[in-house]
Amino acid sequence: MYLEDLPVGKRWESAGSITITEPEIIEFAERYDPQPMHTDPKAAAKGRFAGLIASGWHTAALAMKMQAEAKLFGDTELLGLGVDGIQWPEPVRPGDVLTLESEVIGNTPSRSKPDYGIVKVRTMLRNQHGRPVLVITPNCWVPRRPADTP
Amino acid sequence: MYLEDLPVGKRWESAGSITITEPEIIEFAERYDPQPMHTDPKAAAKGRFAGLIASGWHTAALAMKMQAEAKLFGDTELLGLGVDGIQWPEPVRPGDVLTLESEVIGNTPSRSKPDYGIVKVRTMLRNQHGRPVLVITPNCWVPRRPADTP
Repeated sequence: MYLEDLPVGKRWESAGSITITEPEIIEFAERYDPQPMHTDPKAAAKGRFAGLIASGWHTAALAMKMQAEAKLFGDTELLGLGVDGIQWPEPVRPGDVLTLESEVIGNTPSRSKPDYGIVKVRTMLRNQHGRPVLVITPNCWVPRRPADTP
Repeated sequence: MYLEDLPVGKRWESAGSITITEPEIIEFAERYDPQPMHTDPKAAAKGRFAGLIASGWHTAALAMKMQAEAKLFGDTELLGLGVDGIQWPEPVRPGDVLTLESEVIGNTPSRSKPDYGIVKVRTMLRNQHGRPVLVITPNCWVPRRPADTP
């Protein structure tokens, strides 16, 4: 796909879902976010959330996985220059079932590189109760359609 | 630490560094960002970056690890409500050596929950050439000092 194939308003929903497990939450957190609320079920049970919660970076990584698997841009790579914002409105807990919704909210030709543009995507993960657990707005670098391509 | 211990301008630098390896880049990406630029050295060599690069989510996870290990808030948990923005100014490649710099850039008592406040941190990872590879600005939820605590 090219910039021209990704107009504002284009939407995707994940065909499937991801169920996050306690071992996976602990494994990710021991490696990348070693804090008891993410790694120690007993300590987490006494903590602010009354139970283990996933690292927000784990949730963000799962959103990346679902976006890559959904091939949002077809065979064009999903290459982020950055992200405008992330919100984690609710914690993600073991057994939660996550689904993806994405929508193009910006489409801007590059001023410095005329063969490229930036597509701003709003991606949301919801849990099995339909409540958002992650909202991210990446800015992706996408080639423009060459003039000789139909 | 409490909100009152984290004034604007407070700074940290990581004591150590993290060297990112090719196997770790591939392992993370196969799980969370399955795209050839992150998983397939041969395909990546022919691609836009002329070599394998780390998933931006891997870099972000390493920043979280370094912030947790640096105990930015002492024994108070690092709990992000969200992130104002992420930039990945340059790719991270196998063998890169990453160091952390963080600074408090906002400190705001909560309006709805008088026992808490939000600390906005600007965290940067630099590579061995001193160039920024990740800039993130998380908003963290921090308790206020109880009135009866010295």
